[in-house]
Amino acid sequence: MNRMIFGKNSVYEILKDARRQIKKLVIAKELKEELSDILQLAKSKGINLQYLSKKELDKISKGVSNQGVILYTYPKDYVYIEDILSYAKEKKEAPFIIILDSIQDPYNLGAIIRTSECSGVHGIIIPERNAVHITSTVERISVGASEYVMVARVSNLNNAIDVLKQNNIWSIGVEREGKEEYFKMDFKKPIALIFGSEGEGIKKSIKERCDYLVNIPLKGKITSLNVSVAAGILMYEVVRQRFFS
Amino acid sequence: MNRMIFGKNSVYEILKDARRQIKKLVIAKELKEELSDILQLAKSKGINLQYLSKKELDKISKGVSNQGVILYTYPKDYVYIEDILSYAKEKKEAPFIIILDSIQDPYNLGAIIRTSECSGVHGIIIPERNAVHITSTVERISVGASEYVMVARVSNLNNAIDVLKQNNIWSIGVEREGKEEYFKMDFKKPIALIFGSEGEGIKKSIKERCDYLVNIPLKGKITSLNVSVAAGILMYEVVRQRFFS
Repeated sequence: MNRMIFGKNSVYEILKDARRQIKKLVIAKELKEELSDILQLAKSKGINLQYLSKKELDKISKGVSNQGVILYTYPKDYVYIEDILSYAKEKKEAPFIIILDSIQDPYNLGAIIRTSECSGVHGIIIPERNAVHITSTVERISVGASEYVMVARVSNLNNAIDVLKQNNIWSIGVEREGKEEYFKMDFKKPIALIFGSEGEGIKKSIKERCDYLVNIPLKGKITSLNVSVAAGILMYEVVRQRFFS
Repeated sequence: MNRMIFGKNSVYEILKDARRQIKKLVIAKELKEELSDILQLAKSKGINLQYLSKKELDKISKGVSNQGVILYTYPKDYVYIEDILSYAKEKKEAPFIIILDSIQDPYNLGAIIRTSECSGVHGIIIPERNAVHITSTVERISVGASEYVMVARVSNLNNAIDVLKQNNIWSIGVEREGKEEYFKMDFKKPIALIFGSEGEGIKKSIKERCDYLVNIPLKGKITSLNVSVAAGILMYEVVRQRFFS
C-alpha cells in the first residue's frame, strides 16, 4: 500500500530525514523553480522523480492542497514499546511517553504528534482498535512530525501500562475527576501521560490502572478542553519542570 | 442574516445562556425522546419549536453532524474593547486578554475561544480584515464557548494595542524569536497575549508594539506548534501563576 504526502513543508521534512522508504516524488512542472529546494534535496538522495501538470496533481490529491508536490511513500512503521524505552535510555532521559486512549479525530492526533515532537516526548502509544491511526491526514496535520516521533500500536492498552509499570514508569491519567491539578505533579520522574477520547474520556479499566489522576482546572462553564490543547498544556508543564526548574 | 447551530452540546449551551436572540429550534421528530433535555429547556424559555424528519435536518445541515437538532439564531454580537476592560474590573481581576493577528483557520479560532473560556480570559480581540470571524463552524468547534467569551472586532490592531497600553495592560507577543521563555514572565500583571497567523506569525508592526516577545522552547526539529495549542499552553501558564502560586 502506498501513502501520499502533500505540500511543501511535510514533503521537505520527510525527505530531509529519509528514514522512511520513498517510492517517488511528483512535482508540478510549472512550479519547478519555486520548489527548487525540494528538487535539489530529492536529487541529492537519488529519489525517483516525476513531472506532471499542476492540474494533474490536483486531481491526485482530490482537493487537498498540495502546493505542487506529492511524495509517494510506504506507510509509517510502528515500533514496539521497548524501542521507545531504549530511545529514552539512549538520550539519558527519564522516559516521557504519551498514551492515547481511543482518539477519533485525525486533526487531534496530528496536533498531538506535532506537540510531542516539539516537547521532547520519547514515544506515543495508541491502541490498534477503535482509534484513528497514522493516516495521510494525520501526517499532514503533524507537519512532518510523525516522521520523527515513535508510535507504538498495541492490541491492549492495559497490558502496555503494565509493561511501563514494570519499567518503573508512572501512569498519569488526565481527567476531569482527577484530584490534583496537573502542575502539582512531579514530572521529572519517568512518566506516561494518558489522554482519553474526545467524547468519553479515559476508559474505566485504564483509569483504574493509573498511578495518579490529575485535572486541568476549568475557570468557566465549558466542561472540557479540546484533547490536543489539553495534551499540549500537560506536555509543556513537563518541559518547564524538566528543563527549566 | 440567520445563523444555524448544530448538535446537542452547542445548542444546549446557547439555550442555557440565552443572551443570544433565538429565532427557532428545529428538532428531528424521531429523536424527541433522546432530546428531551433540550426540548424541556426550550419550552421553559418559550422558544419557537419546529419538528422535521431527521432526513430533512440532514439536508439543512449539509453533511455537518446535527444530532437531530438545529438552532436558528441571529449572529453573535461583537463587543468593544471597553466592554472587555469593564468585565475584568467587575470581576476585580487584572485584565487577561487574547489578541489574534490574522488567524485563518476556523478550527484554530474555535479551539482558542474554547480554551479562553476555560482559562478565564476576559475577552478576545480580532481584526476585521484578513482573518476568520465567528462563523457557525467556529461556534461548533468552540462547543458553545463562543456564547460566553466576549470578542471585539477592530479595524486596526495597532490602535487596539495602544488603547490597552493607555490602560496599563502589557502586550506580550508569542513568537519564535522571543528572547525569554514564556514561563519566565510575570503573568499576574494586566496582560494581553498576542498570537500570529498560522503561516506568518505576528506582523512586524505589531511585534514592534509589543512590550515583550516570549518564546515557547522547542526541543525537536519541527519549528512551530499549532497556534491553538500554543495559545492553550500560554493561557494555562497564566492560570497556574494567577490562581495557584
